[in-house]
Amino acid sequence: MRRTSFKTMDCPIARSLERVGEWWSILILRDAFAGMTRFDEFSRSLGVAPNMLTRRLQALVKSDMLTRRRYSARPARYEYLLTERGRDFRAVLMAMLAFGNRHFAPEGPSVIVVDATTGAAAEPIVVDRHSGRLLDEPAFAVVAGPAASAATRERLALRAARLSSQSSAAETAR
Amino acid sequence: MRRTSFKTMDCPIARSLERVGEWWSILILRDAFAGMTRFDEFSRSLGVAPNMLTRRLQALVKSDMLTRRRYSARPARYEYLLTERGRDFRAVLMAMLAFGNRHFAPEGPSVIVVDATTGAAAEPIVVDRHSGRLLDEPAFAVVAGPAASAATRERLALRAARLSSQSSAAETAR
Repeated sequence: MRRTSFKTMDCPIARSLERVGEWWSILILRDAFAGMTRFDEFSRSLGVAPNMLTRRLQALVKSDMLTRRRYSARPARYEYLLTERGRDFRAVLMAMLAFGNRHFAPEGPSVIVVDATTGAAAEPIVVDRHSGRLLDEPAFAVVAGPAASAATRERLALRAARLSSQSSAAETAR
Repeated sequence: MRRTSFKTMDCPIARSLERVGEWWSILILRDAFAGMTRFDEFSRSLGVAPNMLTRRLQALVKSDMLTRRRYSARPARYEYLLTERGRDFRAVLMAMLAFGNRHFAPEGPSVIVVDATTGAAAEPIVVDRHSGRLLDEPAFAVVAGPAASAATRERLALRAARLSSQSSAAETAR
């Protein structure tokens, strides 16, 4: 199956998706941030088939996004807690939350981020940690890093070529 | 199928995932940001089966993330371009890129974000647009918005209850 080719991709987005799996996994992480820890809680929240939920939880444990801990000896029962790596995924969820609110909430937001002290609504944006500037185009570019494969270099070179031909075309059109 | 329940979810993360589909869609968007526009380019980059690629492209057009434009009349050929909404997904990709680089790039980063003028490496973080503060816990909380359903209110109330019991436990443990 072609799907296994993901494992050999060096793109950090592809690798994150490889580990996070698919949207059930992302929603499990969302629910873990919402304080859920137990199979029944995730099951009730997501309405996903139990075998699928089991698989996704196992995958998240294997990827070190969640850790499994026994909280009852008899009967043996387990809970799932966010690891440090799992907690670090919060930034991705915040960016998705903001995107969803901007584009897919015609009736107004159902979920918002607020300052926990003042209750003031916050708006998640992605910036550069060093300069604080918004990470938008064309100010910031995505380029090959030191560990890039030939395929990744080729993909990112295409981008540079297209951007340059676009800006030439825009200048010609003026 | 349970999967259809996503459509009725009011969570902005779930709604974004509903529209973006799954990881192929996210990688298609990644490649669109990399300047790809044509079926063959996506196909070559992703190694995904043509019927799957067709379906995902159609779904992204339907969600108004991509727009389909004919660039050749005879033979009829089409290209796929990011819409304004699609371009706005860049923040999510930047957050994923940073996450992947932090956690799944033991050999060093293959893809980085740089200041397009100076070439200085940037580090994508998610902050509040208004205050510029990092959107981390416990400074910022995720709460129900005005359009929240009962289920969403319940889910987010659990969070508040857990956080409060965790901080009590932490205080007891000191």
